[in-house]
Amino acid sequence: MSDIPYKIYLDESELPTQWYNVRADMKNKPAPLLNPGTGQPLTAEEMGGIFCEELVAQELDDDTAYIPIPAEIREYYKTYRPSPLVRAYNLEKRLGTPAKIYYKFEGNNTSGSHKLNSAIAQAYYAKKQGLKGVTTETGAGQWGTALSMACAYFDLDCKVYMVKVSYEQKPFRREVMRTYGASVTPSPSMETEVGRKILAEHPGTTGSLGCAISEAVEVAVTNPGYRYVLGSVLNQVLLHQSVVGLEAKTACDKFGIVPDVIIGCAGGGSNLGGLIAPFMGEKLRGERDYRIVAVEPASCPSFTRGKFAFDFCDTGKICPLAKMYTLGSGFIPSPNHAGGLRFHGMSPILSQLYYDGLMEAVAVEQTAVFQAAEEFARAEGILPAPESSHAIKVAMDEAMRCKETGEEKTILFGLTGTGYFDLVAYQSFNDGTMTDSIPTDEDLEKSFATLPVVPGT
Amino acid sequence: MSDIPYKIYLDESELPTQWYNVRADMKNKPAPLLNPGTGQPLTAEEMGGIFCEELVAQELDDDTAYIPIPAEIREYYKTYRPSPLVRAYNLEKRLGTPAKIYYKFEGNNTSGSHKLNSAIAQAYYAKKQGLKGVTTETGAGQWGTALSMACAYFDLDCKVYMVKVSYEQKPFRREVMRTYGASVTPSPSMETEVGRKILAEHPGTTGSLGCAISEAVEVAVTNPGYRYVLGSVLNQVLLHQSVVGLEAKTACDKFGIVPDVIIGCAGGGSNLGGLIAPFMGEKLRGERDYRIVAVEPASCPSFTRGKFAFDFCDTGKICPLAKMYTLGSGFIPSPNHAGGLRFHGMSPILSQLYYDGLMEAVAVEQTAVFQAAEEFARAEGILPAPESSHAIKVAMDEAMRCKETGEEKTILFGLTGTGYFDLVAYQSFNDGTMTDSIPTDEDLEKSFATLPVVPGT
Repeated sequence: MSDIPYKIYLDESELPTQWYNVRADMKNKPAPLLNPGTGQPLTAEEMGGIFCEELVAQELDDDTAYIPIPAEIREYYKTYRPSPLVRAYNLEKRLGTPAKIYYKFEGNNTSGSHKLNSAIAQAYYAKKQGLKGVTTETGAGQWGTALSMACAYFDLDCKVYMVKVSYEQKPFRREVMRTYGASVTPSPSMETEVGRKILAEHPGTTGSLGCAISEAVEVAVTNPGYRYVLGSVLNQVLLHQSVVGLEAKTACDKFGIVPDVIIGCAGGGSNLGGLIAPFMGEKLRGERDYRIVAVEPASCPSFTRGKFAFDFCDTGKICPLAKMYTLGSGFIPSPNHAGGLRFHGMSPILSQLYYDGLMEAVAVEQTAVFQAAEEFARAEGILPAPESSHAIKVAMDEAMRCKETGEEKTILFGLTGTGYFDLVAYQSFNDGTMTDSIPTDEDLEKSFATLPVVPGT
Repeated sequence: MSDIPYKIYLDESELPTQWYNVRADMKNKPAPLLNPGTGQPLTAEEMGGIFCEELVAQELDDDTAYIPIPAEIREYYKTYRPSPLVRAYNLEKRLGTPAKIYYKFEGNNTSGSHKLNSAIAQAYYAKKQGLKGVTTETGAGQWGTALSMACAYFDLDCKVYMVKVSYEQKPFRREVMRTYGASVTPSPSMETEVGRKILAEHPGTTGSLGCAISEAVEVAVTNPGYRYVLGSVLNQVLLHQSVVGLEAKTACDKFGIVPDVIIGCAGGGSNLGGLIAPFMGEKLRGERDYRIVAVEPASCPSFTRGKFAFDFCDTGKICPLAKMYTLGSGFIPSPNHAGGLRFHGMSPILSQLYYDGLMEAVAVEQTAVFQAAEEFARAEGILPAPESSHAIKVAMDEAMRCKETGEEKTILFGLTGTGYFDLVAYQSFNDGTMTDSIPTDEDLEKSFATLPVVPGT
């Protein structure tokens, strides 16, 4: 046995005091958000109607590499961070691989995922601005739970629009959010204009993150004292999530661990963007090279089958346009169980990095993902979230390739969360009734047709 | 802010290498288990039909203070231990108390509780003995989950009998256990003789731990290659759980923390017995005094309203007799939500300590417990298990008394687990439909009438 412990916990004194903004080191910056009416970059003033002021500043800042984490946020981080960097000794043994497998485990908090890292930051800035409350969407429910925890801490009102399929599959998520004082509405709902419109057009829809975003934004802009907050995709979110990568990097450096390959699941990109941030920084600055792999569900393959284009982040087309890999905002994924990865688009930062050849992407099918999840759970103890299990699957594949070649590669992946609220999905896997659902080329042609024409182009 | 961090994690090198057996320091040893037919102490040979050999030896050992933890068990412990000792800064602030509140948090593993500490030990000894599998009961489901994880790790068959009320309220627990390869049967069932008998007598029963134990024992003794394992009550279980207290004590000593009062919830006693072990050892040896408080539900008040007498551990009366505080094995608690505290009896070790005036006990009602749970969740982030919340309630009461008197007491309590599978209970609290259910004196007289006459007395 090596002298690396099963779990590396940093001391409180080693926790990051600044977030790292990877944009500062990117030669090709992510494209700015555009006003869909004019085709012009959104101004801070325009964004201020939707987002908190300080978050707008972070959204627009392509230059500052390190941004201090306010003391109040650091105090809260200390209640559940550092998260452990785990050496998967038992999984390695089970696979019989010479590879060294590490995972950064973000599931040991009540939100069950990394989402709390940005939720607490966004709630803090909302409180600082003197707002009454915030609105948001949630897919699998981790983000909504995280935000309700953060709002309870800062005494803010919290209105959550939850993708209907997840709302129905995860009734207990609703109770967690209620326990923290949030209101939860299944989306699309009849409460908003955009919800009513979507329901009229697609009466049987199980919803999507895109729909839920439209509703939450509408409620924020029509209620004084409210702003909208988002759990992924945006530059500000990836900034906050850099705390994951910074901790991982510090732990690696402390024990002389150098990953050959870094793997993360990618829905909107917040986990992957956060985990890879400081490693990508080294790569961008030419200091060290890493192989970086995004894993997405074959049922919602924005990187591997999408287009790099300006698109709406929401189905209702009331949000700004972002340049990203997208399947078109009209794409409604099948009621796939990996709720958190059901988004049609992808973080503009990650999209630009992928476009520039700085990272790879791979799509995997969900039954294979759950097979990997079960094997991981039995070896490592932790019952993983379906989202996280996409990364597990690809990490295990990589480890098995090492077994064939004899390479002792070091693999680092992001274990973003736990599957305690995903037991409906596990049940269908245990019962053998789980299926895969891959969009046809025709499906995608249809949803690509919903891509907007940018004014002035 | 003090220089004590929010969370104290020991290094892997500081983890206990021996369990501490508090019986070695007790002047009055707990009474031995008796053969209900003869009234004589159970021999190792008699116990060997039910339990694994090595566990029988541990059960009977009243003298050895420190028992080495086998390397294989320590390796597994490292996958989820040390658990953090947390300073509840946010709760203290919210309460405005001068008290210093600490909790030892055992919920950060998939079983959601401390139960894994003994499950992995018992599975290890079963494997070592060459058994095919083990049987057990589970109430809230933490123990069954823990055992299914341990059996998956050591490749053992695992048959779980789950108290019917919990089985129905927590369908997802079943799926977790299945994911780890266990079979789960609601109890009482028609699969066993004792189950059929109980169902004939009480057709509408929601079950109890006592019933489920009877069924699991019957299956173990009638199937070659199987033994029965138990998650609480027994001396061996408290021995394994001493790892909780030993870690807590090491962390306290490292940071100069001296608890004035130590609080834990008590169902069968495994959590409390484990947490207090080394502290009680100091008290028994006259080295230092601590106030120690057991918290039980008012709906199942074995310490505060029970009798100290020999009784069956199970409803079916097929188990040995244990001398303990008991409500009578015929006691069927109301379908109270705090499933893990529904047991009619109490660990013989804790019973003797309580009888000897070395610890106190208090009973609390569940709506007050859930109020405390909600306040704790909002302040500290963690959504606590209903069982653990009994300790939270009493710790908060103690902290509020300090606020009145101005005393800066140091309070340590056991936060045994998370409430992620208890959302039906949280929902009834959130909806305002939760009720309390306290047995009447008449109820207790009836169940006391089920106490056995010990042969030869």
